[in-house]
Amino acid sequence: MMRPPESVIIAPATPPGVSALAIIRLSGKDAIAITQKVFEGKNLNDQPTHTLHLGTIKDGDDAIDEVVVSVFKEPNSFTKENSIEITCHGSQLIVQRIINTLIKQGAVLAGPGEFTKRAFLNGRFDLPQAEAVADLIVSETDNARQAALNQMRGGFSKEIKRMREELIHFASLIELELDFGEEDVEFAKRDDLKKLILGIQDYLSSLINSFQQGNVIKNGVPTVIAGKPNAGKSTLLNVLLKEEKAIVSEIPGTTRDVIEDEMVLGGINFRFIDTAGLRETTDTIEAIGVGRTREQLKKASLILYMIDLSNSTYQEILDELRPLYELNIPLIKVGNKVDQAKPSLLKELGREDFIFISATEKTNLDALHEKILSRFHVDHVKQGDVVITNVRHFQSLQQTYDALDRVLAGMSNGVTGDFLAMDVRQALYFLGIITGEISTDDLLDNIFRKFCIGK
Amino acid sequence: MMRPPESVIIAPATPPGVSALAIIRLSGKDAIAITQKVFEGKNLNDQPTHTLHLGTIKDGDDAIDEVVVSVFKEPNSFTKENSIEITCHGSQLIVQRIINTLIKQGAVLAGPGEFTKRAFLNGRFDLPQAEAVADLIVSETDNARQAALNQMRGGFSKEIKRMREELIHFASLIELELDFGEEDVEFAKRDDLKKLILGIQDYLSSLINSFQQGNVIKNGVPTVIAGKPNAGKSTLLNVLLKEEKAIVSEIPGTTRDVIEDEMVLGGINFRFIDTAGLRETTDTIEAIGVGRTREQLKKASLILYMIDLSNSTYQEILDELRPLYELNIPLIKVGNKVDQAKPSLLKELGREDFIFISATEKTNLDALHEKILSRFHVDHVKQGDVVITNVRHFQSLQQTYDALDRVLAGMSNGVTGDFLAMDVRQALYFLGIITGEISTDDLLDNIFRKFCIGK
Repeated sequence: MMRPPESVIIAPATPPGVSALAIIRLSGKDAIAITQKVFEGKNLNDQPTHTLHLGTIKDGDDAIDEVVVSVFKEPNSFTKENSIEITCHGSQLIVQRIINTLIKQGAVLAGPGEFTKRAFLNGRFDLPQAEAVADLIVSETDNARQAALNQMRGGFSKEIKRMREELIHFASLIELELDFGEEDVEFAKRDDLKKLILGIQDYLSSLINSFQQGNVIKNGVPTVIAGKPNAGKSTLLNVLLKEEKAIVSEIPGTTRDVIEDEMVLGGINFRFIDTAGLRETTDTIEAIGVGRTREQLKKASLILYMIDLSNSTYQEILDELRPLYELNIPLIKVGNKVDQAKPSLLKELGREDFIFISATEKTNLDALHEKILSRFHVDHVKQGDVVITNVRHFQSLQQTYDALDRVLAGMSNGVTGDFLAMDVRQALYFLGIITGEISTDDLLDNIFRKFCIGK
Repeated sequence: MMRPPESVIIAPATPPGVSALAIIRLSGKDAIAITQKVFEGKNLNDQPTHTLHLGTIKDGDDAIDEVVVSVFKEPNSFTKENSIEITCHGSQLIVQRIINTLIKQGAVLAGPGEFTKRAFLNGRFDLPQAEAVADLIVSETDNARQAALNQMRGGFSKEIKRMREELIHFASLIELELDFGEEDVEFAKRDDLKKLILGIQDYLSSLINSFQQGNVIKNGVPTVIAGKPNAGKSTLLNVLLKEEKAIVSEIPGTTRDVIEDEMVLGGINFRFIDTAGLRETTDTIEAIGVGRTREQLKKASLILYMIDLSNSTYQEILDELRPLYELNIPLIKVGNKVDQAKPSLLKELGREDFIFISATEKTNLDALHEKILSRFHVDHVKQGDVVITNVRHFQSLQQTYDALDRVLAGMSNGVTGDFLAMDVRQALYFLGIITGEISTDDLLDNIFRKFCIGK
């Protein structure tokens, strides 16, 4: 992605596939001029920003498609550069022909996230806001969408920036003291600094604490349905997924991409991990204890363990469950085929915190849902709520907090100004890493390469 | 799809999937007003046509996404109605939320092709032009794309319309004669009518004749690779497809939808029919003669029949080929494993019009390509070329031609004006069916239900 910032980048911005429309996006100083070279219609160079123009994209004498071109003039575009969006008919052949034609005119194919990266580099927003763009696109629950949108709209950026400025002010004052050497001056009032730091830590704490929910909101809960063969694992999975699918497929044409093994419950995305290995194992008890299966289980944040009530004794069940407890992963014990269970067994299991269901008959699934939600709960994310969902932010916030702890400790230990200044500078560094005011090519590459093409 | 034409229809216009952007489309008298109800930003009702507006789509207090809204005012839109395109982030969750919100405000989900149907009903274009929109989207070769684009841009529409008007003029004159009853007047000069009809037939002929190529351009050539087990059928298929894929996957992000079993050669799409049944059959000779396999072969417009040269005698090969000739389908005889063949066999087969290849070694594939193209050839479709690709048009053109034949026959037989008028009216009817000036709900439903949602 090392190319001159003045180059014109191009990429498809909509998914491949047959559809009514597709969008091709260009950005860069000459984006409008380059498009004009292949556009038959009004002269795009003369058009005001935020206008739409019907015309034909041509490759030499060849008309490729009739399109509508959107003109965005710097700095009033997503990237703050001159930008074009070409809305053509939704055919990959057409998208490809148009892109190839514009590449011949000097445009270069954009890398993943390169549009958003330019928006960041051109100061449209800070790094968390840029990162939120990617989160928004992949959000699979309404909570995740709202958290990403809030972050994209500023979220904690403004507050962090304000805190950083105040700290910079103090750092300068402390460093000013150093210039005065032996003269015992104190420009930076220590009490004020302490008050500021405690205030900042207070805010950081609330952000850091929000990550536990934020992580669940963004990444969902990896869930395993385990149990012996014929315990009814597949039936339960299908029943759980089916409910969900009915909701997802509400709008025709939007179901093709439905991810098979996810269930949204209480605003949380429960992602079912494929435990094919586990499912096929004939001796589950042993399997849990060993190797690959144990590793798979360890990836889970929740295990739904199924027991076939029609075919087990109380003692067998206790033996079967024992190795699970060692895993130390939230566990919900599901007794299946309750309609075929002996009453005496149900009575014995009453002490064991079981949920009794029949996957086939769909009985008591509500209780199972409630049980799951009693283990995992997120608050409904509202407009303006700030939730940390990004592990990078979480870590840097923690590092900032710790650096500020060192400043406080230094002050109570009466360290000299130069050491104090160093600790404050370190806190500033970590805050800068969050907002992107301090960044490296590696960091940016790491962030933007996870974006999709055209974003 | 029976709803009042003034209702506002809504649909996603881009494919489902995670992407930079997605488009939601609305059309109808109140499309702008309805969008304004959920839009936070400038008042869309006050904006001029063909302008873009950044803002937020809200569901009550909930901000769903930051979007760019395109405003198109009647009659300057695709449908000639007030229209809105909402460009949001490319997430199905967001698309779904926005559509649901607008449905709450009174929009209704559009059926397949309903936007294009409105465009047709509102006189934006005639029926062949509307049909070309769908063809354009699914076109898989550049020839098919160009043929569809030409048709969308008017193609034969204008010419047919002109001819229809001239014929209507004559029909009126003939009918006028009838009003004068016994007075022997002749308003419609028979010589002029004959000249007109011959001219029209001439044009119709050229259109009708273009269908042979047009059909190949639009629908491709269903192709079967057949032969005994181990003749190398799968290897050849893979080799043929692989060359193609390298081209298709030029642009990252556009390869996901690549259809597996197609090869574009000389601008023609050769679609390989799955002959699983045939491939598995151990006794191919018998299989060709009977049942299901024979039926599968009959669907083909081209058979590549493969012989294992390393493992057959001349006589065996002749016997194996014999039942194929009865099928009366273009047949290319491919001798595979030429590197392992006895020279004497190759000499004997010299008289049999074989292509000798080695699929594994990729030898002589160019000759195979040439052979295929010698059987199927289409001219490169250039801008403005008129090619009939639609069987509906083909049939109606033929029916028009035949009706005009009857007019000519009637004239030479000296039939009375009323019969002549009837034949002319019939020709007019078939021409009207093509352009859609005459149409039924059934015909329109048939055409538009094949469109995708959002088009």
